[in-house]
Amino acid sequence: MKGFFRVQTPAELFEKLGRFKPVPSEKIHIDHSLHRVLSEDVLSLTDLPEFPRSTVDGFAVKAKDTYGASERNPVVLRVAGEILMGQVSDIEVKDGETVKVATGGMVPKGADAVEMVEYIEWVDSDTLHAFKTISPLENVIQMGEDIKAGEVALCRGHSMRPQDVGLMAGIGRAEVSVFLQPRVAIISSGDEIIPVDQAPRPGEIRDINRYTIASMVKEAGGIPLFLGISKDRFDILKEKIERGLEESDMVVITGGSSVGTLDLTIEVLQSLPGSELIAHGVSIRPGKPTLLAEVGGKPFFGLPGHPVSAMVIFHLFGKPILKMLSGLARDDAFYQRKVRATAARNIPSVPGREDYVRVQLEERDGCFWAHPLFGKSGAISHLTKADGLLRIGIHEEGLEKGEEAEVLLL
Amino acid sequence: MKGFFRVQTPAELFEKLGRFKPVPSEKIHIDHSLHRVLSEDVLSLTDLPEFPRSTVDGFAVKAKDTYGASERNPVVLRVAGEILMGQVSDIEVKDGETVKVATGGMVPKGADAVEMVEYIEWVDSDTLHAFKTISPLENVIQMGEDIKAGEVALCRGHSMRPQDVGLMAGIGRAEVSVFLQPRVAIISSGDEIIPVDQAPRPGEIRDINRYTIASMVKEAGGIPLFLGISKDRFDILKEKIERGLEESDMVVITGGSSVGTLDLTIEVLQSLPGSELIAHGVSIRPGKPTLLAEVGGKPFFGLPGHPVSAMVIFHLFGKPILKMLSGLARDDAFYQRKVRATAARNIPSVPGREDYVRVQLEERDGCFWAHPLFGKSGAISHLTKADGLLRIGIHEEGLEKGEEAEVLLL
Repeated sequence: MKGFFRVQTPAELFEKLGRFKPVPSEKIHIDHSLHRVLSEDVLSLTDLPEFPRSTVDGFAVKAKDTYGASERNPVVLRVAGEILMGQVSDIEVKDGETVKVATGGMVPKGADAVEMVEYIEWVDSDTLHAFKTISPLENVIQMGEDIKAGEVALCRGHSMRPQDVGLMAGIGRAEVSVFLQPRVAIISSGDEIIPVDQAPRPGEIRDINRYTIASMVKEAGGIPLFLGISKDRFDILKEKIERGLEESDMVVITGGSSVGTLDLTIEVLQSLPGSELIAHGVSIRPGKPTLLAEVGGKPFFGLPGHPVSAMVIFHLFGKPILKMLSGLARDDAFYQRKVRATAARNIPSVPGREDYVRVQLEERDGCFWAHPLFGKSGAISHLTKADGLLRIGIHEEGLEKGEEAEVLLL
Repeated sequence: MKGFFRVQTPAELFEKLGRFKPVPSEKIHIDHSLHRVLSEDVLSLTDLPEFPRSTVDGFAVKAKDTYGASERNPVVLRVAGEILMGQVSDIEVKDGETVKVATGGMVPKGADAVEMVEYIEWVDSDTLHAFKTISPLENVIQMGEDIKAGEVALCRGHSMRPQDVGLMAGIGRAEVSVFLQPRVAIISSGDEIIPVDQAPRPGEIRDINRYTIASMVKEAGGIPLFLGISKDRFDILKEKIERGLEESDMVVITGGSSVGTLDLTIEVLQSLPGSELIAHGVSIRPGKPTLLAEVGGKPFFGLPGHPVSAMVIFHLFGKPILKMLSGLARDDAFYQRKVRATAARNIPSVPGREDYVRVQLEERDGCFWAHPLFGKSGAISHLTKADGLLRIGIHEEGLEKGEEAEVLLL
């Protein structure tokens, strides 16, 4: 196994994460495309709209026929007909004529603007007065104004939002190519770890990480596969890791709570062909004992056993890698939802590690105040109370009350 | 049908939305609980942790036995054994004794602190020197320090995040009671509307709203049921609306693009027993022609046919109502993700309507700048380019370049 055994800074580790390639793609109906990532540039094959449409209820005219019209001096127009919604019509608007159209309706040939219904008055059944001068294209959305045939509607690497699904429908794309959802194998390890439905004997604890990591995998667009709890034995651990590498696109092992499990994991990795250690330890709090490797092109994560540490590390490094596997552009994959917040009290920190302090956010007059949740890092209830993680830089000794910092939203 | 026919301000409408009650609940395994809303207060039946645990790799001691220890003057301790992870042990630490423990391991009876492995040195196989004075509870997480038996772990109305799922696992709750996911019937109407896989003839347009609204329903935790495209005919529309009210918890109709469809919808509502009009028109741009009613206790939405208007209205009013149906507390249901941003150029607005301008956000030095996307409101591609909606108050005439405003994130 290639690799080096040195604790890395978060910045150093981020540098190394660009190496993983997206999974293959598939074609799906847009009905199922929400939050999926496009694996193709989608070209529009049609103009949208496909015909000039009125943006108001009113009367289609040649704009020049309204010139000079005012509340005192209306112009007289002959009503040549009506365009019904969804119906083909050959009506053509000639000089001095007008045709009734509804919002969204086709603006007929000859017309280049629409006088709003608020500005007309009927004279008799086929004549009206128009009281407002309008310019060409007023109240008209032109053919192709939304999107033109041949234009790229959405790019490869884009994650589909509701409006994107709508745009695909608008241009007639019922199917799109998207990246598969990466599968993530999750292994819990440690002799003290038991399943949720088992009563712990003294010294045993229930498996929390399985559920937090699986949930984060889902939030990042992946599909979690739980491979069970592994005892701290080389052969059992190796069998599970091999199965994970075979059946999925990424493997995450949460490592008991002891240093021993991590050592055992490294031993297993060393026994696997094509494995390379990327990081062994990150200077971060909480979460130092972290392992990141590449095995046969797939990312392999060894996370601390502490639920809080495991979550913080997976949030910072695991989710971005997973998003890259799922085809997101690198910048989007590494994007973190965050806000600026002011420390509501002093928050101490020890230099040498980047500190992610669990905080509650309070909004006052549009600004955020961060209240730190102090306590031991093992406390999962801290994370359930927290709104975010306040970042204290690796060289800083903490924040004073009133100072601003970045808070990553959880 | 009760009701009044007056255009309302957004603030007036928000006031009236508290009336809808959550749907029934069900019991599910925590494996499927991510983003579901709790319908019960969850009490912890156990202490977490269930035994005192070490937060470091080290040696459990009576803290008083380390008093006076320093780098120059270590104290001598007799090693009485080791606590293996996950194993029951009766070892008791007596005066002058110590027991080896790993991170997360049980702190044995008699001990009240853990000396870190970094501060000991072996003298012989059962004696060591400890070089640091520690206080009681140092490096120990006490029984129940994370959560105590009888404490409320999570409250009714809370939406489950990864850490919440983890906490349930930690306290041994494999099942939780959650509200059902509300079903939302979606009807598209308008004679000009055709399905995505059909080629439009002149004057026809593909159904966009079906997909945008269904996607927003999914994002808000609901289950969309598409009931098809209705022609602008009373009997067809009535049949679909009745079916929607029967089979789902909320009905949304996107209304062709014409005023006619909305009128027809009101006629259908008037023919239904127990219907009450809550709003007919909201002073908002884009999106004025909006209908909100209650029919047999269920919310009924008539949205504009313009895709952009429909999305903005559903984002502002539909999603909060849907979230209330799904059991979220009112404040959480109405919470909008937003940022403060500075106008990157002048943004005009007409007083009398609340204006939601589509903007792209640019981040510079941690601050956001909003670049408005100008153009006609029908353009769905505008929403695909937009990061958010910049709000201009109902009495304001716009923003000048450099002024700050709130941007709702899309």
